[in-house]
Formats: sequence, C-alpha cells, structure tokens
Amino acid sequence: MDASVSAVLAFDLPAWTAVQLERVEDALSKWVAPDAPAGLGDAMRYAVLDGGKRLRPLLVLAAAEAVSAQAPLRARTDEAALRSACAVELIHAYSLVHDDMPCMDNDVLRRGKPTVHVKFGEAQALLAGDALQALAFELLTPDDGCMSASVQAMLCRLLARAAGHDGMAGGQAIDLASVGVTLTEDQLRRMHRLKTGALLRASVLMGAACDERSAAREPGVVEALARYGDAVGLAFQVVDDILDVTTDTATLGKTAGKDAAAAKPTYVSLLGLDRAAAYATSLHAQALSALDASGLPERETQALRALAAMVVHRGK
Amino acid sequence: MDASVSAVLAFDLPAWTAVQLERVEDALSKWVAPDAPAGLGDAMRYAVLDGGKRLRPLLVLAAAEAVSAQAPLRARTDEAALRSACAVELIHAYSLVHDDMPCMDNDVLRRGKPTVHVKFGEAQALLAGDALQALAFELLTPDDGCMSASVQAMLCRLLARAAGHDGMAGGQAIDLASVGVTLTEDQLRRMHRLKTGALLRASVLMGAACDERSAAREPGVVEALARYGDAVGLAFQVVDDILDVTTDTATLGKTAGKDAAAAKPTYVSLLGLDRAAAYATSLHAQALSALDASGLPERETQALRALAAMVVHRGK
Repeated sequence: MDASVSAVLAFDLPAWTAVQLERVEDALSKWVAPDAPAGLGDAMRYAVLDGGKRLRPLLVLAAAEAVSAQAPLRARTDEAALRSACAVELIHAYSLVHDDMPCMDNDVLRRGKPTVHVKFGEAQALLAGDALQALAFELLTPDDGCMSASVQAMLCRLLARAAGHDGMAGGQAIDLASVGVTLTEDQLRRMHRLKTGALLRASVLMGAACDERSAAREPGVVEALARYGDAVGLAFQVVDDILDVTTDTATLGKTAGKDAAAAKPTYVSLLGLDRAAAYATSLHAQALSALDASGLPERETQALRALAAMVVHRGK
Repeated sequence: MDASVSAVLAFDLPAWTAVQLERVEDALSKWVAPDAPAGLGDAMRYAVLDGGKRLRPLLVLAAAEAVSAQAPLRARTDEAALRSACAVELIHAYSLVHDDMPCMDNDVLRRGKPTVHVKFGEAQALLAGDALQALAFELLTPDDGCMSASVQAMLCRLLARAAGHDGMAGGQAIDLASVGVTLTEDQLRRMHRLKTGALLRASVLMGAACDERSAAREPGVVEALARYGDAVGLAFQVVDDILDVTTDTATLGKTAGKDAAAAKPTYVSLLGLDRAAAYATSLHAQALSALDASGLPERETQALRALAAMVVHRGK
C-alpha cells in the first residue's frame, strides 16, 4: 500500500466531522433568527436545529479545505465556508418544511419528531420556510468586511441557481408530476440531479468558491469538483431509495416505504435492489476518480473522499 | 411659482411610467423561467406576468435615476436597476402566491383572476413561490460581467434582509398572530414596516445601490432615501386599508372588505377613515421632505416625488 492510500485510509472522519459539526451547530444556533417575531423564530429554529446529518455543510467545509489548505487568507475563507455551510443547510431545511406540508408529501414525522406544520400550524410552516430561504442569502452577504464582495456574489449565484427552477424547486416540480408515472432511468436521473443533486453539487462548489485565490477557481478544479458533487448527489439519492425499502421508520427517523406507497418512481423500483446497490458503488468510484483528476493534492481531499464513502455506506 | 416647483409639477409620470413598465414587462417575460420543468414555469409566469402596478420596480428605477443621472457608467447602472426592479417584483409576487394559499388568507381572486393555487393546485403554488424567491437572487447575480461583484453583493444583502424574518416574512408572522387582536398604533405600524414597508424601502435603496460611484453611497443620501422609502411604504399601507373599505371587489381586483371580515386590525379600524386619510397626507409630506434633505438635485428626484403622490392618491 503506498503512502497516499494509507493516508486516506487513516483519515479519521468521525473526529473531523465532530469538529466541523460543533462549528456548524454553534453557528446555526447563533444565526437562525433568535429574535424573529411572533413565533416565527421558534418555527425556524425547530426546523433547523437539533437534527439532520448536515451532509451539505460537511461537503462545503470539506471542499473549502480541499482547495485552501495553506492559503494565506485562511481566516476569511473559514468564515465564508462556515456561512456557506449554514446557508446550504437552511435551503435544505426550508425545502423539507415545505415538502412535508399537507399539499405536498403530507408527512407528520421528520427526524423522529413532528414536522413543522404539525407543531406550529401550516401558515407558520409556510412562512418559516420562506424566511429560511431569505436567511440563507442574508448569511452569504455580511456587511462587516469578513468576506469579499466577489466571494459573496459568487456564493449567492451558486446557491440561487441550485435552489430555484433549474435546481431543487424544478426537481420537486418534476417529482410532483411523476407520481404514478413510469419514468425511464434518464428521466429519473434528471429529476434527482435537480431535486437533490443540484444543492449537493452547489455545496461542493460553494466550498471551493470561498477561497479567493485564483487557484481555487481554475476551470479544471471547478469542473472536477462539480463531477464529484454530481456523483455524490446521485449516489445519495440511490442509497436513499434503497434505505426507504430496507429500513424501518424508527431507524430512518421518517416514514419508511412512503415512496412505494405514493407510487413514486425510485431507483429500486426501476432497477431492483441489487442493481441499485451496484449503481451506488459505481457512482462512488466516479466521485473518487473525479477527485483524482482534479489535480488537488490527495491529502487535501481526504474529507471529500471520506464523505463520499459515508454517503454510499450510510445505513449499513 | 419658482422654477424647480414647476419642473416637478411638469413631470409627466404616466409617460415616464409607460417607458419603465415596458422595460420591466419585457425583462420579466424574458427572465421568468420560460424553461422551468413540469408546469412550474407556467405557474411562475402566471404569478408574475400580466398584472400588478409594479410599484416596487418603479421605485427601484426612480431611485436609480435619482442618484445616477449623468453617471459615467450609465449602461451598467441601468442593467443593475432593471435586474433589481425585476427581483423585488419577484419577491412581491411570491409573497402574494403564498399569502393567497388556503392555509394563509385563502383568497381565490387576485388582480381579477383566479389565484395561483386555484389555477395550478396548492403544491405547484408553493413551489412556484419558492422558485420565484430563488430567481430573484439569481437575477441579481449574473456572471456575464454586466454588474460588478460589489453591486451584486449589496443588492443581495438589501433584498435578503427585506424579504426575511426581519422584513416581509416577519411582518406576515405578526399579521398572522394579530387576527382578532387589538393592536396599538405602534404595533400596527411595526407590523406594516416589516410586512410591506421593508420591501418598498429596499426597492428605493436597491435602486440607489445600483450606481457604483461613492456619491450614491454617501450616508446622508442613503439615510434620506431610507426615510423616503419608509414614509412611502407606510402611506401605501394606510391607503390600502382605506381602499379596502371604500372600493368594491371589481374595482380593487381582489376581494374587498376582507380585512374587516377577518377581524384584522387596520389603520381604518384603529383611526377611522378621516384620520387615516390625514395620516396618509402627512406621510406624503414626510416622503417629500426626506427627498428635500437628501441633497440630490430636485430635478433628479421628480420620478420619486411623483410616485409618492401616486401612492397616496391612487384609487381616487
């Protein structure tokens, strides 16, 4: 085994994750609207705090590390990465709040707890989701000089595109229109590239964009990180579909089997369990090979590599 | 009558408005998601196109004119102002879509047409609103060099704060919590400062921020424009409350008398019609005196002055 491989294998993901999650949870607790009026802050905080794997924030922080190790402006990059990590999580959280509402998935359980609309009412859930989306962009545009305008603009650009009609919201519209419809594998892939993939990809690219040095913006690096993000995003969805049929509700923390019950197309319904698992493995390999092709030092991409493995092997 | 007063009186608001609205409608038609998937684009366009007074876009464009007449970078300022004008309108439009939903105001009529959820279903309305908010930030962050990063960052900052928990969404939460409750005038004013005032104020400040020259960012100018925006925003709401009780549904284009029916506090219920009208007149005077104090040449603020008059006198 050569040194670089053993270095990757030796990478301690749980320890790294624990450090990063503490930063993210502290920041979210500080930034998510403690002073919002008339119960809105309570609903926003309930939707965001104390729950979730924080995969998107971890991808942001891992990507920022990958491009900026030994960077001279480390403190500024760190602040931008932490704000980006929280911003993508707020977009993710708002999408769950709105997704769970009666007019969408009508789900009453999320992370083992009542969903926001069950706890606070539908109107407050709608508003909390709306306010979380705005807050994401607010976090990316501080006026205290801790981030350059060019980084702020690029982060807002990446996040807005990933969240909107050509990203997450567009994917949800396709999902909505696909209930009871037989999709081809290409159509299913397109839906997931938008619905979950766009934000996971943006998480990686936002992390890289936090570093102001031009090296982090070389087309080759950005393109390789985008391919990594796409592969991880798709793998995430394939594994999600597998877990939906192989795990019970208590373990999953949300209602299991609901895709099948809703006659929604999934990778398992399309490919069967074995081929879906093989597809996840192949996407994992694609993610790693994209990092190999990025030209970034392997040592700096350890967290990204470990996160790809975690996505594919979670629930096992 | 001195020359400056007659110049203001001579300002042709309908002609100015017609020119600006053509630009705004063309831009919205081009930018609002013609290619969004699975019916989402139809719902977004239905929510935005062919309707509305476009007061917020007009305020953006008037404020940009006020600070940037004779500016050397006029083309860039113009592009930023047009994008800002559309962005604030998208935020306004998304708030109407979500506001009209059954879990909020449950309104079936808007601008004389069925509301988005009546026409496209609740789930699509929810998604269309979400996607419109994201699109607003997308419009503010083009990557083709037509706007500087510093202008992009400042515009996103202003819009995010005005839309979120400390702005529009926060005001809506207070509104939600105020049904059947007796508010003091101070509490009612706070609700409206957030619910409608924040976005109207931001429209003015965003227009000014489109000009990259430092003159447009002088604290005195910004502060005066903010006071103008606050006064116009509050006047708008007072007049809205008056029109709600003095105009029929057909003329209003939305359900009249619904505030009273919902036992929502209004300026009319609090002050009575006469004092509410006097309050609107006094806010109009405050708006004009803020412009006088701005130090901007009176000639350049004609559109802002005429818009303040239009807000107070609409429906008459």
